[in-house]
Amino acid sequence: METKKSFVCDYSEGAHPRILERFIETNMVQCPGYGFDTFSDSAKAKIREAIGDPDADIFFLGGGTQTNSTIIATMLKPFDGVVAVQTGHIAVHEAGAVEYTGHKVLTIPGKDGKMDAETLSTYLEAFFDDGNHDHMVFPGMAYISFPTEYGTIYSKAEIEAIHSVCRDYSIPLFIDGARMGYGLKAEGGDITITDLKGLCEVFYFGGTKVGALCGEAVVFPHHGAPNHFFTMVKQHGALFAKGRLPGIQFDTLFTDGLYLKIAEGAVKRAILMKWIFRKYGYPLHMDSPTNQQFIILTDEQMAALSEYVKYEIWEPLPDGRTVVRFATSWATTDADIDFLEDVLKKIGPREG
Amino acid sequence: METKKSFVCDYSEGAHPRILERFIETNMVQCPGYGFDTFSDSAKAKIREAIGDPDADIFFLGGGTQTNSTIIATMLKPFDGVVAVQTGHIAVHEAGAVEYTGHKVLTIPGKDGKMDAETLSTYLEAFFDDGNHDHMVFPGMAYISFPTEYGTIYSKAEIEAIHSVCRDYSIPLFIDGARMGYGLKAEGGDITITDLKGLCEVFYFGGTKVGALCGEAVVFPHHGAPNHFFTMVKQHGALFAKGRLPGIQFDTLFTDGLYLKIAEGAVKRAILMKWIFRKYGYPLHMDSPTNQQFIILTDEQMAALSEYVKYEIWEPLPDGRTVVRFATSWATTDADIDFLEDVLKKIGPREG
Amino acid sequence: METKKSFVCDYSEGAHPRILERFIETNMVQCPGYGFDTFSDSAKAKIREAIGDPDADIFFLGGGTQTNSTIIATMLKPFDGVVAVQTGHIAVHEAGAVEYTGHKVLTIPGKDGKMDAETLSTYLEAFFDDGNHDHMVFPGMAYISFPTEYGTIYSKAEIEAIHSVCRDYSIPLFIDGARMGYGLKAEGGDITITDLKGLCEVFYFGGTKVGALCGEAVVFPHHGAPNHFFTMVKQHGALFAKGRLPGIQFDTLFTDGLYLKIAEGAVKRAILMKWIFRKYGYPLHMDSPTNQQFIILTDEQMAALSEYVKYEIWEPLPDGRTVVRFATSWATTDADIDFLEDVLKKIGPREG
Amino acid sequence: METKKSFVCDYSEGAHPRILERFIETNMVQCPGYGFDTFSDSAKAKIREAIGDPDADIFFLGGGTQTNSTIIATMLKPFDGVVAVQTGHIAVHEAGAVEYTGHKVLTIPGKDGKMDAETLSTYLEAFFDDGNHDHMVFPGMAYISFPTEYGTIYSKAEIEAIHSVCRDYSIPLFIDGARMGYGLKAEGGDITITDLKGLCEVFYFGGTKVGALCGEAVVFPHHGAPNHFFTMVKQHGALFAKGRLPGIQFDTLFTDGLYLKIAEGAVKRAILMKWIFRKYGYPLHMDSPTNQQFIILTDEQMAALSEYVKYEIWEPLPDGRTVVRFATSWATTDADIDFLEDVLKKIGPREG
Repeated sequence: METKKSFVCDYSEGAHPRILERFIETNMVQCPGYGFDTFSDSAKAKIREAIGDPDADIFFLGGGTQTNSTIIATMLKPFDGVVAVQTGHIAVHEAGAVEYTGHKVLTIPGKDGKMDAETLSTYLEAFFDDGNHDHMVFPGMAYISFPTEYGTIYSKAEIEAIHSVCRDYSIPLFIDGARMGYGLKAEGGDITITDLKGLCEVFYFGGTKVGALCGEAVVFPHHGAPNHFFTMVKQHGALFAKGRLPGIQFDTLFTDGLYLKIAEGAVKRAILMKWIFRKYGYPLHMDSPTNQQFIILTDEQMAALSEYVKYEIWEPLPDGRTVVRFATSWATTDADIDFLEDVLKKIGPREG
Repeated sequence: METKKSFVCDYSEGAHPRILERFIETNMVQCPGYGFDTFSDSAKAKIREAIGDPDADIFFLGGGTQTNSTIIATMLKPFDGVVAVQTGHIAVHEAGAVEYTGHKVLTIPGKDGKMDAETLSTYLEAFFDDGNHDHMVFPGMAYISFPTEYGTIYSKAEIEAIHSVCRDYSIPLFIDGARMGYGLKAEGGDITITDLKGLCEVFYFGGTKVGALCGEAVVFPHHGAPNHFFTMVKQHGALFAKGRLPGIQFDTLFTDGLYLKIAEGAVKRAILMKWIFRKYGYPLHMDSPTNQQFIILTDEQMAALSEYVKYEIWEPLPDGRTVVRFATSWATTDADIDFLEDVLKKIGPREG
Repeated sequence: METKKSFVCDYSEGAHPRILERFIETNMVQCPGYGFDTFSDSAKAKIREAIGDPDADIFFLGGGTQTNSTIIATMLKPFDGVVAVQTGHIAVHEAGAVEYTGHKVLTIPGKDGKMDAETLSTYLEAFFDDGNHDHMVFPGMAYISFPTEYGTIYSKAEIEAIHSVCRDYSIPLFIDGARMGYGLKAEGGDITITDLKGLCEVFYFGGTKVGALCGEAVVFPHHGAPNHFFTMVKQHGALFAKGRLPGIQFDTLFTDGLYLKIAEGAVKRAILMKWIFRKYGYPLHMDSPTNQQFIILTDEQMAALSEYVKYEIWEPLPDGRTVVRFATSWATTDADIDFLEDVLKKIGPREG
Repeated sequence: METKKSFVCDYSEGAHPRILERFIETNMVQCPGYGFDTFSDSAKAKIREAIGDPDADIFFLGGGTQTNSTIIATMLKPFDGVVAVQTGHIAVHEAGAVEYTGHKVLTIPGKDGKMDAETLSTYLEAFFDDGNHDHMVFPGMAYISFPTEYGTIYSKAEIEAIHSVCRDYSIPLFIDGARMGYGLKAEGGDITITDLKGLCEVFYFGGTKVGALCGEAVVFPHHGAPNHFFTMVKQHGALFAKGRLPGIQFDTLFTDGLYLKIAEGAVKRAILMKWIFRKYGYPLHMDSPTNQQFIILTDEQMAALSEYVKYEIWEPLPDGRTVVRFATSWATTDADIDFLEDVLKKIGPREG
């Protein structure tokens, strides 16, 4: 239990209250297992409507790592690897879950957590067009996160450019949407929820980090699911016996636009937070338009802040300072932001 | 949504109401992720106390298949397979999840879903003592389910005999406890919750089928967890970011003995159900002492029953009749059993 | 080094002398690596001509187990397993090599080492036509050995029946031909080398057990190779840098029909051997038409024979006697058979 | 078949003639299979003597990729990856064979193909000593090639420094010796064959590229083989049925020091070749002390040289020139080097 106000991450609290209410309302309804329940059906229908694709194939899995590894292992051919930027979540923080499925993560340089269409194009061209690479792992899919692990976003044109490169080489594009809501509601973003179906071959709406207790909604636009994906979900241990657990949650999140409302509230408060940090002279590591803000602190500032609030240590800088992360979520209130401002006012920038 | 009363399985409804109450009570408490929350800590302490092993290593995973494959893949050496009876869940109904980890399920004959110590001993003796088997898969673990997939149970002496064989050959015994509670409260059973720590090297308390929305509590008695099991859970996609989700559920299930109370109530009603089926002349496929009852029905009886209740088709018999399963759970009420009796009274045995 | 005449197996000696001669003749010819050498090209051309399929895709791998696991892992889809009889080599004696690739070996009962079309059909029908099996491993390929691990053979009609069942369910048939030559030259066999291309989707001509030092020639009839099979061979560690090693061997074996001549000679002597065993009253375990003969011996007979010759212990019988294997190869001479007859004459049947 | 003199690689010709002679001399000797033959025993004894380690465990496998993946998969724990420099063979040119076994190749920067002890130390320190990395792949082994993929070598002190870092973190060091001979006989090298046993936990003597037709001799010093490594070799498809094939070859290569004599001859001619290239004004990409020489050519020079000899294209340079490889082997003669000099004399440096 946190004794100080925590801005460590967007999964510190439980679930959006409406989800818990729905658990109670529906608790005694008897349903078939494994996702064949009414709630899952209803959730899928609402997601199809929200994204504007009546033909989308939709599956509910439990968490991000298992979703990534199940999708990647199922869609890659046996001689393929998945292309990601060096900071991609699958390349670093999933304990080798992709390699465990037998496939290499092929990394290319990124910037601020983002893949660049031209870098991807150069990479694929070198592989497929220049000489013979039959002793190497084939690039069989491109993976990007939206927003990225650094809270940054792509413009619609940027993803379209990446997708266009992928189509030139006939490989699918997979968008890891563990924080999809925050990307869709990002400051200055231009991708809407109905754009997604045309931007990639598969993406998911992350639940865990956008108001649910668990669960990710995987979407294959236009009947695009691989054969027997249900069985693959089972084989990868990602199938809930009580399919109602993700079903009810996503049904709630996609009722009256709750998913995007949660995201919008969190982003709004993160932008305020960014403004406050700047106002008190704290430099940003990156100008993030989403619910994660990356601030540069001196050791002295870290100590002073730690008396009042909790945050995530992100990475050390060569000059001895540290990048830290402050995140907002559905549970962050205006009062929390005011409290943070009071703290900053009190301690001042205290430069080292 | 089921429109008729369903006895299909023990995961038809949501969660035990006390769990949902606790979700609401704790919802705004901020916690670290990945199982380092207060609730998980508390749940572990309560489980350690319940089983009488202060040194047990405990981990919470999401579901049965991922729990089985993570444990098996982690504990086997690379030249090993896992020994199970031919009807074992891992051998049949997990879409090849164990093989996906690179290991063979070595099957031996069972009876009523149970492994026999002597059969196991003969198998291991033939492998390890008689000649050279370096071109074959080594038996590296024994796997049993308690209760079994057929609702049957082992006596304490039976598991001790199996465990003794395992120790003779220095291989661990793993007890799949997806329905552990029902085994511990089975009619005529003699295994208590404090016995478990001495009967095997690893077991789990299934939550999904005993009142939780999801979650399995894996127990390695006496500091027995393999090195870096946490990382293996992550690698296998079985780690919840919101560790509070299983944490709160198991904390609730192990408060005031709720887990065993749920199991006892379900078993009691299943035994009543068995008595009623017998009373009206319906033959049992097996004399199950747990919450799953296996009844033999003619086509005519199936049709008649299906007008009032739902049940699970289990397997066809050579004589044209069908084995079906009726299950009880925390949600089954005395009224449900009375209703079933009324139905049977109305339709009679109607033998074919 | 064997000090007594050995009939243990068909890989006791080195290579057919013509192969060694060719090694010497070609030794200083410089070639590209990895199978792009002249000898491999020539060998492929000769195999295409021998089987009557100018469009066959052909690859050379090193040994049986790696050939089996590479083919199976490449051709199965991720939710698939491979169907084999319980005595199939991949199911028993390959140290879990198929499971290591993540796929289950689905076993069905066989007879004398053979798969039966009807048993296969029943199995596939139960899986694909009767109810939903989405929690189970899909049968994605059928695997048979020709000849079988027991030296028995299929008639053309029998394999056609199996193949027809496979086509009904759109799964490929794979024929393990580690001893293909002996099958094609079997006593009473009716399958010719030009039949193979129409009987399955992939097969191989085993070299190791038919006169080569190593190497198996995998044939996908009619341009049937999976995409990038070359890369899969590399990934599975089955690609020789000196591709000339299998290339020269298969070029030699398929020059002037040497492969089939070797097989014919070995089979002829094995049939003689069978006749001699019978003549001296030794019961056969099976009436094998190929180069492996399975004889039933008492302990006394085993001891007596072991003073003169070596043979392979196959399996104990319930009555205390033992099945042993006597094998012939390219290196077995008429004098060896005469010697064996002299031994039998000397020791007599000595019934226990 | 190469119509021009080829310097493309060190596996262009067959085998050292003494090996072929031995094949013929031993061809009719009957042996048990799978490495239990006299020749393998003798080869192991000679290798043990050559390296000065009577307790070394030795296994013969078929080729480099399968040797690398079998060793790595067997020695890593399930949460581990293997650390290599970015240009390491396993990281680039083995078609994902390591990832196929479920393990990540963790790359660190190298220089001229070499790993640096300090870079490794920094990497391991950051992982093991600084903070918690339970969501990441553990570094479980270090992998280096001797000589490297660029023909460069380590000094004894350099490998000792790397080994010392490995021991500090209790991870094994694996030396890929696909071209081990050339490293041991490298110009200016100070590692002798008896040093190897103290420098790492496992290494191999590559046969394929040092005069054999195929085969790698894996050495675990001081009884260091992992349990049941034989079975792992089988599982990975790397076990020859005719174990005599590698056995005879390594027995020959380790008789009268042939292995090192082959390497010395090839290195001597490569150094001459380097001297000649320099003499005619061709810049070196790297000053390689082994049998592979890397020369920088303009397009014009490439065209001119290609009229007379064959070489390997290595990689393009940013300035438009190309790095090419010229390799020597047991089959390279003094006349071949003279021929190359004549060619260079004729065409001159022709700078672009």
